Amino acid sequence: MDSADIAMIGLAVMGQNLVLNMADHGFTVAVFNRHTDVVDEFLAGPAKGKSVIGTHSLEEMIASLKRPRKVMLLIKAGSAVDSVIEQLLPLLEKGDIIIDGGNSHYPDTTRRYEYLKSKDILFVGSGVSGGEEGARYGPSLMPGGSIEAWPAIKPIFQAVAAKADGEPCCDWVGPAGAGHYVKMVHNGIEYGDMQLICESYDLMKRLAGMPDKEISEVMARWNKGVLDSFLIEITRNILAFNDEDGIPMVEKIMDRAGQKGTGKWTAIDALDKGMPVTLIGEAVFSRCLSALKSERVRASKILSGPTVEKISESEKKQFIDDLEQALYASKIISYAQGFMLIREAAKEFKWDLNFPSIALMWRGGCIIRSVFLGEITKAYREHKDLENLLFHPFFESAVMKAQPGWRKTVAKAVLNGIPTPAYSTALAFYDGYRSERVPANLLQAQRDYFGAHTFQILPEYEDDKKKAGKNIHINWSGKGGNISAQNYDA
Amino acid sequence: MDSADIAMIGLAVMGQNLVLNMADHGFTVAVFNRHTDVVDEFLAGPAKGKSVIGTHSLEEMIASLKRPRKVMLLIKAGSAVDSVIEQLLPLLEKGDIIIDGGNSHYPDTTRRYEYLKSKDILFVGSGVSGGEEGARYGPSLMPGGSIEAWPAIKPIFQAVAAKADGEPCCDWVGPAGAGHYVKMVHNGIEYGDMQLICESYDLMKRLAGMPDKEISEVMARWNKGVLDSFLIEITRNILAFNDEDGIPMVEKIMDRAGQKGTGKWTAIDALDKGMPVTLIGEAVFSRCLSALKSERVRASKILSGPTVEKISESEKKQFIDDLEQALYASKIISYAQGFMLIREAAKEFKWDLNFPSIALMWRGGCIIRSVFLGEITKAYREHKDLENLLFHPFFESAVMKAQPGWRKTVAKAVLNGIPTPAYSTALAFYDGYRSERVPANLLQAQRDYFGAHTFQILPEYEDDKKKAGKNIHINWSGKGGNISAQNYDA
Repeated sequence: MDSADIAMIGLAVMGQNLVLNMADHGFTVAVFNRHTDVVDEFLAGPAKGKSVIGTHSLEEMIASLKRPRKVMLLIKAGSAVDSVIEQLLPLLEKGDIIIDGGNSHYPDTTRRYEYLKSKDILFVGSGVSGGEEGARYGPSLMPGGSIEAWPAIKPIFQAVAAKADGEPCCDWVGPAGAGHYVKMVHNGIEYGDMQLICESYDLMKRLAGMPDKEISEVMARWNKGVLDSFLIEITRNILAFNDEDGIPMVEKIMDRAGQKGTGKWTAIDALDKGMPVTLIGEAVFSRCLSALKSERVRASKILSGPTVEKISESEKKQFIDDLEQALYASKIISYAQGFMLIREAAKEFKWDLNFPSIALMWRGGCIIRSVFLGEITKAYREHKDLENLLFHPFFESAVMKAQPGWRKTVAKAVLNGIPTPAYSTALAFYDGYRSERVPANLLQAQRDYFGAHTFQILPEYEDDKKKAGKNIHINWSGKGGNISAQNYDA
Repeated sequence: MDSADIAMIGLAVMGQNLVLNMADHGFTVAVFNRHTDVVDEFLAGPAKGKSVIGTHSLEEMIASLKRPRKVMLLIKAGSAVDSVIEQLLPLLEKGDIIIDGGNSHYPDTTRRYEYLKSKDILFVGSGVSGGEEGARYGPSLMPGGSIEAWPAIKPIFQAVAAKADGEPCCDWVGPAGAGHYVKMVHNGIEYGDMQLICESYDLMKRLAGMPDKEISEVMARWNKGVLDSFLIEITRNILAFNDEDGIPMVEKIMDRAGQKGTGKWTAIDALDKGMPVTLIGEAVFSRCLSALKSERVRASKILSGPTVEKISESEKKQFIDDLEQALYASKIISYAQGFMLIREAAKEFKWDLNFPSIALMWRGGCIIRSVFLGEITKAYREHKDLENLLFHPFFESAVMKAQPGWRKTVAKAVLNGIPTPAYSTALAFYDGYRSERVPANLLQAQRDYFGAHTFQILPEYEDDKKKAGKNIHINWSGKGGNISAQNYDA
């Protein structure tokens, strides 16, 4: 009794693997599962001979823990989490720690954090990324919530987490739902990265007529440069994987994307916070469009486009180099947007977030792990208050260098009728973001014209009738063009 | 007593104007306002001599009504609506009708509809569009809810509504929150139309160096063709409107767009329903980006783009013709997406919606009114079950004809660094929608590779191990390339 360092509730593959990982690092883990036969099978199987204590009730599980008790949940997100928390509450005492490692939506985590605070229980909502493999050998962990819990869980979390350049891909994120928030944005960025790779593949296939094997070789080459990342690596492997009949397996797969909703959460959150996270938005919508398979098949018979001017052999090298730049630049934009969203959330929720740590947590262990995230970590370490990733000289010059190839690639796609929604929106964002003036002045005039919604004046045009910072309405449709500027408090 | 045809609660400008409109059409209207001095001022002022009955209490108002009592609310959306409904309930009897004409979010309308049904009160949530001017002389009205209420309110609503080609821009939309739903999508489309016009203006200004007066002349010309619409018309007027010093007023306006959230509702609803309503999404995000004015100003000093290759005088005519086609085609895409969303909502909520009527309701009276909507009405009247607007020969051939100019315009913008997010996403959608195969096959392979999320097989590649329609997982990273296809029920 009193011998376990931490308890794990939920022994699906993720839970089992994380337990084994903890045991490998010298921790004793008490485990419990709703169906207790799973506990017995686990103990007799993968956990045999390891420092794992099987328990058949929550009481038994809690009794086996050192104080302060640390209980981690890896169960289905939603009401099950609330229900287990309620069952745990009578068994816990002040200062004990509940950790939700599931895929909870961050507002739920914030709610539970507040609730458990009122009960003197510490609560941590932690993003866990890396899938089964990551859980077993080193996930990315993004814990947030009651900071008083951090010293107690830090040794365990940082030991089992992935290491990148020698540093653990786990650090304290921030209060309340901050850990799950950062995990949500991670998933949104993952949607974006995957969409960008798909568009690159589609362009090589449809514009240059390249077979999958050759595209796989390009991915292998890219994986040695600035795009070096887990997703490029697995894409290389996927495209080289042939079925028994020699046909690339990928070509046999139904082009209808599934989703579990976390990308959607990010896009909705961006809309709610008013941040232009356009690339994730387009990535989610692209999955939606792909899902309309039968409608697309009908549309393909009715709607036509331009004849594709195939890339010739002699142009191919330049085309692929341009594509690499397009992918790289678009990816920089996507991460810049993602960090803009996190920055806005930090402001709105008054969370003090550690940006270099967030980048470092994504550097290894998780699906979006990449060399690129090392550069982002470095950038934020150099300038903790960096307003935007694009303002750092490294990324500013990377995008500058990538621009000609990026623009050529998008223009070519547009003229040849190959859809590149993510590439295109990234470029439109870049051009909009670097525009001192965008045409929203006309939009404000329209809103004032038809709905008296008022507008403000540019400071350089301020005069006695039109003060900068004031809401102004004018009678646009009045005859004779005379102006009746006035303040308007609607 | 018992003499009024309908009652109006809420005498802000919209309410007052709609009451005067009703009175002009021979109806007697009882009016009430929380601050009763507004009632007196209205009766002594604009309503003087008209068939309007001022009342100082809800009791007095109800007593003045013919049966079944019809009570319309034009008050601030939100809890105020619930509160007034609660105050009305004790005064009403079975079969009486409450109409919410405010800007309510459709789930609230559905909730109120269900609640009032349980109280035997009929409830109508009606979109009202057209602003103050519309309310006074002919709005677009989009009523939905208890269909039993329709015969009673139809004579009033269709009398006061705008007329387009002789038909009232008001018809029954559908059950529950359908009226407010259609109004929400209307507003989202309005966001899209405005963004498209802004991008056109920006291109003429930055790419062709055209002064506002000249752009206004282009708008005037466009307003005589396929783009003939209220928004093009007011844009023409705005761009011709000079301040006292001769500088176009629009150039003095701060390029920071406001929003009231209905466009955002539409984009979020599209994400929730999994429909790729990308143009409205980009339009909302563009407003968000415009709002980051000071950040954009800093970015403009750090981030650079290509030197703009100005359109020469000799190329200008072609450039503007291309632009008109780009705007027209993008607009067709936006409306196709909007109707896809409505169709999906109808499916999800089991609403039997009348598509030609919806198009007709938007044909006149509202902000997006246009000749174009007459074509949409016609298309849906010809084919009631038209799967997609783009499948109708009129729009299919319009987009076909527009394509070369559309693609040239977007390519030019991309190469010259002028942001056209709405144009670009419309084109990407068109090319994706008409693609029998999109690269989501690779995406599904990635998801299966790292998360065992499974995929399905294209029917033409079905075999004994891989059945079409089954969820398949394979061991992608297994050595030797052998395949272990298996069903997977996660």
